[in-house]
Amino acid sequence: MVFLGASSQGKLLLFGIPYDSTTCFRPGARFAPDGIRFFSENLETYSPSLDKDLEAVRFRDLGNVDVPANPEKLIKTVEDFMKNVEIPIMIGGEHSVTYPVVKSLFERYGNLTVIHFDAHADLRDEYSGTKYSHACVMKRILELGCNLIQIGIRSGTKEEFELMKNSLQITYLYSPKDLPEILKSIKTPVYITIDIDFFDPAYAPGTGTPEPCGFSPIEFFETIYKLPPVKVVGFDVVEVSPPYDPSGITQMLAAKIVRELILKFWG
Amino acid sequence: MVFLGASSQGKLLLFGIPYDSTTCFRPGARFAPDGIRFFSENLETYSPSLDKDLEAVRFRDLGNVDVPANPEKLIKTVEDFMKNVEIPIMIGGEHSVTYPVVKSLFERYGNLTVIHFDAHADLRDEYSGTKYSHACVMKRILELGCNLIQIGIRSGTKEEFELMKNSLQITYLYSPKDLPEILKSIKTPVYITIDIDFFDPAYAPGTGTPEPCGFSPIEFFETIYKLPPVKVVGFDVVEVSPPYDPSGITQMLAAKIVRELILKFWG
Amino acid sequence: MVFLGASSQGKLLLFGIPYDSTTCFRPGARFAPDGIRFFSENLETYSPSLDKDLEAVRFRDLGNVDVPANPEKLIKTVEDFMKNVEIPIMIGGEHSVTYPVVKSLFERYGNLTVIHFDAHADLRDEYSGTKYSHACVMKRILELGCNLIQIGIRSGTKEEFELMKNSLQITYLYSPKDLPEILKSIKTPVYITIDIDFFDPAYAPGTGTPEPCGFSPIEFFETIYKLPPVKVVGFDVVEVSPPYDPSGITQMLAAKIVRELILKFWG
Amino acid sequence: MVFLGASSQGKLLLFGIPYDSTTCFRPGARFAPDGIRFFSENLETYSPSLDKDLEAVRFRDLGNVDVPANPEKLIKTVEDFMKNVEIPIMIGGEHSVTYPVVKSLFERYGNLTVIHFDAHADLRDEYSGTKYSHACVMKRILELGCNLIQIGIRSGTKEEFELMKNSLQITYLYSPKDLPEILKSIKTPVYITIDIDFFDPAYAPGTGTPEPCGFSPIEFFETIYKLPPVKVVGFDVVEVSPPYDPSGITQMLAAKIVRELILKFWG
Amino acid sequence: MVFLGASSQGKLLLFGIPYDSTTCFRPGARFAPDGIRFFSENLETYSPSLDKDLEAVRFRDLGNVDVPANPEKLIKTVEDFMKNVEIPIMIGGEHSVTYPVVKSLFERYGNLTVIHFDAHADLRDEYSGTKYSHACVMKRILELGCNLIQIGIRSGTKEEFELMKNSLQITYLYSPKDLPEILKSIKTPVYITIDIDFFDPAYAPGTGTPEPCGFSPIEFFETIYKLPPVKVVGFDVVEVSPPYDPSGITQMLAAKIVRELILKFWG
Amino acid sequence: MVFLGASSQGKLLLFGIPYDSTTCFRPGARFAPDGIRFFSENLETYSPSLDKDLEAVRFRDLGNVDVPANPEKLIKTVEDFMKNVEIPIMIGGEHSVTYPVVKSLFERYGNLTVIHFDAHADLRDEYSGTKYSHACVMKRILELGCNLIQIGIRSGTKEEFELMKNSLQITYLYSPKDLPEILKSIKTPVYITIDIDFFDPAYAPGTGTPEPCGFSPIEFFETIYKLPPVKVVGFDVVEVSPPYDPSGITQMLAAKIVRELILKFWG
Repeated sequence: MVFLGASSQGKLLLFGIPYDSTTCFRPGARFAPDGIRFFSENLETYSPSLDKDLEAVRFRDLGNVDVPANPEKLIKTVEDFMKNVEIPIMIGGEHSVTYPVVKSLFERYGNLTVIHFDAHADLRDEYSGTKYSHACVMKRILELGCNLIQIGIRSGTKEEFELMKNSLQITYLYSPKDLPEILKSIKTPVYITIDIDFFDPAYAPGTGTPEPCGFSPIEFFETIYKLPPVKVVGFDVVEVSPPYDPSGITQMLAAKIVRELILKFWG
Repeated sequence: MVFLGASSQGKLLLFGIPYDSTTCFRPGARFAPDGIRFFSENLETYSPSLDKDLEAVRFRDLGNVDVPANPEKLIKTVEDFMKNVEIPIMIGGEHSVTYPVVKSLFERYGNLTVIHFDAHADLRDEYSGTKYSHACVMKRILELGCNLIQIGIRSGTKEEFELMKNSLQITYLYSPKDLPEILKSIKTPVYITIDIDFFDPAYAPGTGTPEPCGFSPIEFFETIYKLPPVKVVGFDVVEVSPPYDPSGITQMLAAKIVRELILKFWG
Repeated sequence: MVFLGASSQGKLLLFGIPYDSTTCFRPGARFAPDGIRFFSENLETYSPSLDKDLEAVRFRDLGNVDVPANPEKLIKTVEDFMKNVEIPIMIGGEHSVTYPVVKSLFERYGNLTVIHFDAHADLRDEYSGTKYSHACVMKRILELGCNLIQIGIRSGTKEEFELMKNSLQITYLYSPKDLPEILKSIKTPVYITIDIDFFDPAYAPGTGTPEPCGFSPIEFFETIYKLPPVKVVGFDVVEVSPPYDPSGITQMLAAKIVRELILKFWG
Repeated sequence: MVFLGASSQGKLLLFGIPYDSTTCFRPGARFAPDGIRFFSENLETYSPSLDKDLEAVRFRDLGNVDVPANPEKLIKTVEDFMKNVEIPIMIGGEHSVTYPVVKSLFERYGNLTVIHFDAHADLRDEYSGTKYSHACVMKRILELGCNLIQIGIRSGTKEEFELMKNSLQITYLYSPKDLPEILKSIKTPVYITIDIDFFDPAYAPGTGTPEPCGFSPIEFFETIYKLPPVKVVGFDVVEVSPPYDPSGITQMLAAKIVRELILKFWG
Repeated sequence: MVFLGASSQGKLLLFGIPYDSTTCFRPGARFAPDGIRFFSENLETYSPSLDKDLEAVRFRDLGNVDVPANPEKLIKTVEDFMKNVEIPIMIGGEHSVTYPVVKSLFERYGNLTVIHFDAHADLRDEYSGTKYSHACVMKRILELGCNLIQIGIRSGTKEEFELMKNSLQITYLYSPKDLPEILKSIKTPVYITIDIDFFDPAYAPGTGTPEPCGFSPIEFFETIYKLPPVKVVGFDVVEVSPPYDPSGITQMLAAKIVRELILKFWG
Repeated sequence: MVFLGASSQGKLLLFGIPYDSTTCFRPGARFAPDGIRFFSENLETYSPSLDKDLEAVRFRDLGNVDVPANPEKLIKTVEDFMKNVEIPIMIGGEHSVTYPVVKSLFERYGNLTVIHFDAHADLRDEYSGTKYSHACVMKRILELGCNLIQIGIRSGTKEEFELMKNSLQITYLYSPKDLPEILKSIKTPVYITIDIDFFDPAYAPGTGTPEPCGFSPIEFFETIYKLPPVKVVGFDVVEVSPPYDPSGITQMLAAKIVRELILKFWG
């Protein structure tokens, strides 16, 4: 099973990282890559909003990365995998898997702006006894030297909110609708990471840590459609957890995000 | 078990068609008629929005049509059933079951305007080896000679969108709020078909092919309440799929649609 | 397992009433107290909207009341329990459990305004053979002599709607946004009871009787944040029914309501 | 929906009592009558073991009794219902509903032997604040003056086991295979009550209080087939709880028990 | 995703037929081929009972056949597919899919003995308006001229049981343990078809029509291990329905059957 | 929530290790400790088979160990915890958590016989990149110097089966019924570890890696009841995975095992 419209060629490379070993509350994100592929088959390849078709884009689906249980080894495994990936379209797994992807890109390009859609700040220094927990991923990315645009964050410790508002590396947007304007001044390569819990749990119930009062898919896609031309060098969708959504609407939303982002930036 | 408020008399006839044999992705719509009846018991008969009560309307619940597995035979079975039905209130089943109901009414009245709420265009010519797939139902209805008002469509092939925008038989409304104005000029009898995936999956997760970025029940009902007096000769609610919604909110929404439409047009 | 941030001291007392014996449609609310505690662990103690932290509030979690099956005995059991409770934070259970809590407070203070968020009027005189059904709870509370502000009601009999609109004891607000203004003139102690089905089923699918066309958590919390200073003497969240929500987003919403209300009024 | 093979005539009367209000652990038995009817449609009317067919038996399906929430009122409601029932085939509901059925029959016939298949003794005097809890049903039946044959009991308090072994009214059989011999000497009318948790949870997972180490359906049916001719005046199957068995094998087993017992005694 | 141990070579060809359109009671068998592959990954390739390893067998996994909705077209589609299959290992889908596989083999070899493990006779002439329903599959196979050994049948109409016992083409074994002896005299090629509902529902709850009082996996495998050398020219496992078994034990059993049969006959 | 009958005193200490981070197939065992406690409330404290009562035994329930995500750190955390535990009754979690418990006891007593009920050999040297995977736990325990009695193993690699049969440290029993005789000659302290997948999946569907053809609870308990007096210094029940068993029969079986083992050895 491959993602809808995948072909056997192209430098755009989709892959899954079925990892959820640091998930503190309830695991299941490991089932997301295959779950999202399954639901993608039910989408059309054509986007009426963009008037573009996936069949005109060349991208490959490499399947899933073979993951170890140990969080430190996971980082190394994904970094090795990234050596052969030009433009990554990554499907998690929990959010910790974003770090080694971003690290590889930052080292490749020398600088990087990470656009981070999420309900949670993910700026803790350590959690559950590891620095590579999904609760720490943005802290690690900051330490690399990336710039961070955090959007939709509505949960965190007081310390995380203070860091988010005070760090010169971080731009904090409560609502996605301010993103198009902000992006106009970005010169660096851009990576987009979407934690599905950015959305209100009504739209994405299948996730490890649902947080009320989120955004709607319409608000998200309208923002994406308006983005100015920037150099996007990859993106990911993480924290979908199929066991908690028997309806599959979360997986379907994730599949549509993948389709629309591919078409927006490479269609 | 009969639908809430059903009596033993009346020419308004509610019935279910528990059919899902052409469903390409995931079956389950066959369980909708009984599922919606079950949830209807939990509604009040009184509608505060319309200040009308189901107990003042005479309608019968005929139970479910006995369905064959073969899609061609299904058409014939429902057409036969329709011979004794004056005003149909049909609960699907997948959307393919709308065709024989509409065919019977078109032949009876000589013309018909079909108002079609849906996420998908359903305008393919053939699918899964049959012309009577749920993906083809609106194409078949067009061929009968009906006029079509399609509302909320956000998924289809490029060809379907072109047909939808170019066919003289089709009026395409992105949003339901334009419907009341459009209906003022309609002189023909009107049939309303509501595919539950017209709604955003957050409100109707129990459906075969959920499509993100739909409408809310409030947007739908406000449109219905504002409709001008037209001659409605029947309606249906299709594609509810109970196995994918353990909360039952999809079935409950469908039951409320049935109650409100009965009260709006015959209450 | 205790609610997030509970300590061993304080006169603010959280407790559960795992009772659902009069539930007419589908039981399950008995699992709410423990379900909501479980999900509370996944919230942060800090509220960015209020810039306050649960760790600075002293409240105890007393666990659950031992409940009998008989509805008349249930009233007596909870009244006895309330003798040792100064400020109750009650987690139901079905809505019938609100009555003995309110009765105790009304007798203690001599008057009481009850703010009632719900989809249903709950103003029937008798149901399923008992006056203590969850369908009758607000009727019983009226009889005590309380003033009632009912918000969001969209389901009931014609008689209930007439009572709601005509009774001098009841203020009926269709939308929560009018509440802050209304509350400015309230001099009595205030009790808040939140039936989770006040919210649209998309946001709270895990409930016994979901009713379409409700409000969103954002609309609710924005109202709460704007409330003027009144003397709140307790509150409850009822009718969460975990068996119908495998995603847990309903339990999570209830947990967030508890956190935000504690912080708003005692933080 | 009626039970498989039910007709519009006959003094054999099948009915459901959708009651679970005293269930102490987890409710759901209220959904059994309709759940078992639904699965019965998937059985054949013909029993190859008995070489008899349901279509040759006249029995009616009266639907479900309307039940109150209060356990004392429930007893009265069912007793009233029983006035018009000659031979009851009752589908519970929790086990407490057996008491009023047995009481009616005992009063009608003056004596009665109750054959009780169960994992639990159900001999407590009071539970959850009521004498009519499902944990007390056999104690109440003893007090009427019935003789009791208890089979398969493997859970209870020490006191219950002592009563079971010492009471002159009770015959305790660990295994069902001794029943045919015992029954040869019974002269009174016989009522059979089958708590589905008599079976090992592997065969009947959908029940409120599953108890490991039970019997298999083959052991049960082989016993039934060998029973000598006795005057059976009714039977019931109780404690099936569909919400806990998404596979439906429990409901299917209950439906097969109903078919085989009807055919054995009246076929 | 391919079945455990599949390689890129070999004339042993495994494939799935994800078809359930004639299923009369509850669909879902279409999800079995991928479900069984998923669970196969959790088996070891080594069988301690046979002391053989799948890694030493060359077999390919061709994926799933693309299926039409119409039952008559399905037969044609599978027959065409079979033209390129030397030894089929087929995973259904509902039982109707066995017919075109057997038809192809019968025509190829000129004669064929079909060993049929099932709870149901499947000997009806027509069902749900088609002769190709899963309830008719063995009748169709008889008409081809195959010999049939039916094992474990415990449900059917009186007519089916009479046919089963009287037809010269059919050998009826109530229990599998008589099979090894019977097979010693078989000279024709042999095809084995296993409807998962042959097993007691406790062991295989995930199936469309569970029938109590079946056999255990141990009884089945002990029979298989004792089979004399016969020329097996293919086999299938059908009627697994993953939506009804959230534990996956049915899928796991099916996967183990596939492994053990491959190893027994080709290992 | 504590385990049924737990008191505030005693050197028998029950605790949970909610860990599943190395689980290779499907996680969920982290929910077992609380799930088993919940179901224990539905057991009686009295065992009719042993004629003993939990209320006469003093044991404490310490709640759950706080676990890190990293498998190496997990070992250290549990070893530290064990310093204050005299007789451990441990509820997993995945099987890897048994290692640090056994290590502590082996170091304390100098020798130890481990009785291992399981479907899988768990004798791999490394798995998923760690030596502390649940697939390696018995290999690690062998390396400590323990004697091992492995019972019920029916899945493993050829190498694991050879080690199991050839190692002088291992006694391999296919069936549990040979254990009482074997135990008569054991002089060392004894630890019992029960992987719930020892049982046939019909009896314990809620586990990560169900393996067909296992044993029944009756076979297990009859073995336990017959054990000769040995010095049992602790036991555990692991690999229960509640998310895969909505009926809860697996949790109930685990709870009964805990009760019966406590009563057998300390009652």
